[in-house]
Amino acid sequence: MKPDWLSDPVKLSDQTIAGRATDRQSQLTKPPGSLGMLEALAIQLSSLQQSEKPAADKVQISIFAADHGVAASGVSAFPQEVTVQMIANFSAGGAAISVLARSLSAELEVVDVGTVVAPAALPGVISHRAGAGTANLHTEDAMNEAQLVTALNAGHEAALRARERGMDLFIGGDMGIGNTTPAAALGCVLLNADPGQLAGPGTGLDSNGVAHKAKVIREALSRYDDLSSQPLEALRCVGGFEIAALVGAYISCAQQGIPVLVDGYITTAAALVAVRFKPEVREWLIFSHQSAEPGHLAMLQALDVNPLLNLGLRLGEGSGAATAVPLLRAACSLHNNMATFADAGVAES
Amino acid sequence: MKPDWLSDPVKLSDQTIAGRATDRQSQLTKPPGSLGMLEALAIQLSSLQQSEKPAADKVQISIFAADHGVAASGVSAFPQEVTVQMIANFSAGGAAISVLARSLSAELEVVDVGTVVAPAALPGVISHRAGAGTANLHTEDAMNEAQLVTALNAGHEAALRARERGMDLFIGGDMGIGNTTPAAALGCVLLNADPGQLAGPGTGLDSNGVAHKAKVIREALSRYDDLSSQPLEALRCVGGFEIAALVGAYISCAQQGIPVLVDGYITTAAALVAVRFKPEVREWLIFSHQSAEPGHLAMLQALDVNPLLNLGLRLGEGSGAATAVPLLRAACSLHNNMATFADAGVAES
Repeated sequence: MKPDWLSDPVKLSDQTIAGRATDRQSQLTKPPGSLGMLEALAIQLSSLQQSEKPAADKVQISIFAADHGVAASGVSAFPQEVTVQMIANFSAGGAAISVLARSLSAELEVVDVGTVVAPAALPGVISHRAGAGTANLHTEDAMNEAQLVTALNAGHEAALRARERGMDLFIGGDMGIGNTTPAAALGCVLLNADPGQLAGPGTGLDSNGVAHKAKVIREALSRYDDLSSQPLEALRCVGGFEIAALVGAYISCAQQGIPVLVDGYITTAAALVAVRFKPEVREWLIFSHQSAEPGHLAMLQALDVNPLLNLGLRLGEGSGAATAVPLLRAACSLHNNMATFADAGVAES
Repeated sequence: MKPDWLSDPVKLSDQTIAGRATDRQSQLTKPPGSLGMLEALAIQLSSLQQSEKPAADKVQISIFAADHGVAASGVSAFPQEVTVQMIANFSAGGAAISVLARSLSAELEVVDVGTVVAPAALPGVISHRAGAGTANLHTEDAMNEAQLVTALNAGHEAALRARERGMDLFIGGDMGIGNTTPAAALGCVLLNADPGQLAGPGTGLDSNGVAHKAKVIREALSRYDDLSSQPLEALRCVGGFEIAALVGAYISCAQQGIPVLVDGYITTAAALVAVRFKPEVREWLIFSHQSAEPGHLAMLQALDVNPLLNLGLRLGEGSGAATAVPLLRAACSLHNNMATFADAGVAES
């Protein structure tokens, strides 16, 4: 009963165009390789977008918001009503991601994938609810099959909107009090890691709180056989609605040829699920930053990623990815607009 | 015979405003501390600019260009005429820094502090020449006292222009074939380091070239007693005109209350000279990135710096600093425009 689109093939990058972009980089008026990761980014975007003029101008930021039954097990420093309050803050323009999206002239939308109480109708907020929050993964499956499909579809539809809008880049954000717990649980399943390794302070737990969170995850995982080779089943059992929506969005973006800029801890857990389910998704994902949440590094290493930024961010909402967008824009602008040695009459080494 | 302005006091940051900025950060709708270095940047800029609305909108980029007699000792992968060719490329808009400056709507100017052959008059290029390149530091003092003063003044005047223009931020860039050699030499003097530690490939030397460069520096330094407590004398003996101009610019910016975003290897050597000469300059310097040039890390550590970016850049021209400007802008925008918990009706932890 998985949705049909999930089996569609992922688009492939164009290696001929990658070769031409690499060649162009070597002709620009700079010592070879001296723009480091900005060169690699331009070449990657060129080959993914199948364009000799890579771009990161048109950016869609879709924030997926949902609640988590596991909040009842005392895993967050903030009360659960903050999820809906923050949806209102996104809509009103006062949240970090709202401010960053305006600076970037990005398209910002919020998708309610299932808060405990549905928010009032608000500008920029789309309702695509899989339920009134997940069940408590501490004691039962977080969601049933139908809910998983609804949540995956929420992400797929966001990716379809990005395609219709002709977006150069997709950013998924997360909002959901308690969601570092399902993210850590998914990391534990897919990396065969102990919860003590991947559970962290989230929005601000002390060391006792972190130990309790690890215990909640350990008890949750003890109910299942090894799910490491069943990423979507792991997502259903110990994930969350917004995480499932992110998984759907990432897979769907890769199918439609839209590069993704991954945010932090929660979104990397979703990326890990997406890549384990369909490894070809990996090349469509650019990782924006290393979160201050300690377990993020292990997930990044499992994906063999060296992210762009390491600024001690741990907010979520897509804020780390939004902060990194100017680096992609700089990479594209340099690639497209610098003079070559021949153009400028500059001698080569 | 040092210029009078050099003894003017450095402006102090405002700790009352820093306290208010710290307080505001704690009220914004995010978990405390979750914006990491972006929070620290906003607080630092607020206290330096003595403003509750810190800004990085108006940015001046002054590239100081000069030639180096030590090029005759075979220390660079590029021929010396590239310095003047790149001045023309900056002016024509084809260089990396030209492209980045346009994207940032920054004020870009080039100051010729002394190339071997003076460039033709070009738009955006200011002539403030201390000589036709430095003498070869391998065998003699790089410059005399009068040349040092002229070069320091070139930087001071750039800082005065930034003040007249009401700039929020100053970036100094460097261009000068061979200039990683004087930068490494200054690092060796001021850190009491061996040239083998601080000499690197620069624009593209192989390992033999790097070993030769270290030997050139070692031989140069053997002519002097310990200069580690005489930073300006070290600058005169083994520095370069553009490095001296950067030292002058950084000191003068600190005197006039303009925050500086330091670029990479060459500019950090200048920052080190400036801070050793006047330690109060330090708080005015924000370090943009860790260069791929291996010796940069030792200099950053000596300054107790954790820079914003680590993207493997090693181009100079101010390009790493320009790449980091959007991070400062994001920090300011978040600080100034996010809603507080009270504004947004969001519950606190």
